[in-house]
Amino acid sequence: MAPPRQVFIAVIGAGGVGKCFLTQLQQLASKLSQSPSSPTYLSLIYLSTSKKALYHPDYKSLSNWESELHASDKPTLPPTNLADYLVKAPGKVVLVDNTSNQEIAESYPTFLSKGISVITPNKKAFSSSYALWRSIFTAASNGSGAGGWVFHESSVGAGLPVLSTLKELLETGDTVRKIEGVFSGTMSFLFNSFAPTSGGGAAFSAAVKTAKEKGFTEPDPRDDLNGLDVARKLTILARLAGLEIDSPAAFPVQSLIPAELEACADGDDFLARLPEFDDRMEKLKRDAEKEGKVVRFVGSVDVGKGEVKVGLEKFDTGHPIAALKGSDNIIAFYTQRYGDNPLIIQGAGAGGEVTAMGVTGDLVKVLRLLQ
Amino acid sequence: MAPPRQVFIAVIGAGGVGKCFLTQLQQLASKLSQSPSSPTYLSLIYLSTSKKALYHPDYKSLSNWESELHASDKPTLPPTNLADYLVKAPGKVVLVDNTSNQEIAESYPTFLSKGISVITPNKKAFSSSYALWRSIFTAASNGSGAGGWVFHESSVGAGLPVLSTLKELLETGDTVRKIEGVFSGTMSFLFNSFAPTSGGGAAFSAAVKTAKEKGFTEPDPRDDLNGLDVARKLTILARLAGLEIDSPAAFPVQSLIPAELEACADGDDFLARLPEFDDRMEKLKRDAEKEGKVVRFVGSVDVGKGEVKVGLEKFDTGHPIAALKGSDNIIAFYTQRYGDNPLIIQGAGAGGEVTAMGVTGDLVKVLRLLQ
Repeated sequence: MAPPRQVFIAVIGAGGVGKCFLTQLQQLASKLSQSPSSPTYLSLIYLSTSKKALYHPDYKSLSNWESELHASDKPTLPPTNLADYLVKAPGKVVLVDNTSNQEIAESYPTFLSKGISVITPNKKAFSSSYALWRSIFTAASNGSGAGGWVFHESSVGAGLPVLSTLKELLETGDTVRKIEGVFSGTMSFLFNSFAPTSGGGAAFSAAVKTAKEKGFTEPDPRDDLNGLDVARKLTILARLAGLEIDSPAAFPVQSLIPAELEACADGDDFLARLPEFDDRMEKLKRDAEKEGKVVRFVGSVDVGKGEVKVGLEKFDTGHPIAALKGSDNIIAFYTQRYGDNPLIIQGAGAGGEVTAMGVTGDLVKVLRLLQ
Repeated sequence: MAPPRQVFIAVIGAGGVGKCFLTQLQQLASKLSQSPSSPTYLSLIYLSTSKKALYHPDYKSLSNWESELHASDKPTLPPTNLADYLVKAPGKVVLVDNTSNQEIAESYPTFLSKGISVITPNKKAFSSSYALWRSIFTAASNGSGAGGWVFHESSVGAGLPVLSTLKELLETGDTVRKIEGVFSGTMSFLFNSFAPTSGGGAAFSAAVKTAKEKGFTEPDPRDDLNGLDVARKLTILARLAGLEIDSPAAFPVQSLIPAELEACADGDDFLARLPEFDDRMEKLKRDAEKEGKVVRFVGSVDVGKGEVKVGLEKFDTGHPIAALKGSDNIIAFYTQRYGDNPLIIQGAGAGGEVTAMGVTGDLVKVLRLLQ
């Protein structure tokens, strides 16, 4: 029987994903502490929102964090101070970043080089400059460094096993030729409503309005329609596949925002005027229908040619990308070993619970590696 | 920079999967030995077929194994003697069993309890008696024991990330309600040919004949048509999901062998007489067509009800199970977090290269855990 061990957890962010993660963390901690052969105790020693933080100088475990955080008068620690606090903890530390904050993303190399592992759904760290990507993986143990471990499964496809599958294909020596799919729950919902395989469908502006009402879009839907979210995910996949993509601006990304509406004051103004441009989208839909196809908003990486692109494509109604349901994501890996029929992963690619699940799954992996 | 380390590998089986694995092992060993930050040297110290073995008393690495194995006059070591040989190796040992041998499967607890890790596509170990399952996971470090690690991703869906995904759903606290899919490349090919979603299709006996000619069946196709291969995979999934399934005989499994042909002397005799029974299968196909459906050979686990079954089911032509191509597998996980639309994994589920890939992927995981 192995002696019990303690691992310290610091969590940044207590919003949608953060709250779901904290619940999953509590369940995991309870299960791991009861393991008969090798109990592990997880101690939450730091929790912060953008405004305030909760932690004790003696690294005492946080309890009742919701009320205590509410009552806390401590400001959030800047990344450098947080790293100083965590590095002195009496044991291994895992930092969980449940934000989409650029400044925190840029501090990952600091945490990693101090031996602190980092897990996160934050796309910014892995899809901004290639220099940041390189410094993260130069520091990490699962890069070329000797520091902490870094995992970010939820940065693409939420809890779906997308990055782990791509890594395994590559690590076992397969040649990945092409990656293609629908990488945005918002875009999936929009096009499954606008251009269903059964024909008909809503006007594009009506589909956007419904998506917003259902909470499937960002507060300003232009933040989904500009394609940048998908472009960030494609940047991550392409880099993992070995391409040195400079940034999400380094390849063609089609925006679905009519040029005339770029300057709208806010999302409401944008939504009010979007119907004026429905005829453009209708024409695309009808042109596709004439070929027996439907339009979908997809991203693809052609690894051999080094080409990445994001935008509208037409698919036969029987194609798995056309037949997607609801707000599901689908990711197809075309490889040498899998031949003509790709390895496909499909399911919900957004939402607090499944995004947090990818983060918790990464935590399980890191805990196994830290033993 | 970490000091270089050496891990010893023993491989049983040099057939279809075994040969592909040995090629992948060589590539992996070459890559790991060149890691600038923490090189790992993999040494193949034992290789055997059912008849002969190749190994050196001083644990010297094998080279030119194809010619040396051919020339070897050493008989294959029985599992107990092999365990005695391996346990004295000067470092960590991973045993790779690329056979479908029951005796070797029954010896896994011996290897594991001696600290030797085991990776394998061999379904027998995990789908025979529940007592064997229990003794394997009582010994293993990724069970309740302190011995070696055991991984068997390729025992279901070959290289597809099926077991790792199921484990992650469970470990992160999701509730898996139902698992359903097409788990046999042979059955997939047979039904995609016999009852394509576009209508028509080959006679059932003709589909079986074509499958055999293409090498998609066992030498005697009855070994596929009896459903036992699928039943073994369902046993593994159900056990991982927490059901104490006694054996693949503990739940209903539909055999596609007409009772009248059970006693055929051999596979050729069986194939020659199979056309006599085509009208039965035609009726099933026509009955499904009347409902706008197609028949498929599927397996399912209803985790809540504790029910496992294997056999023919009807699916709408638009259902992902109906729309499968070639000899692909598809596995759908219905869970609490994923809601109405399941998490789906799809792709080739048989073949030497992709099966070996699952084994190599497991080796990568074990190597990471052994450091």
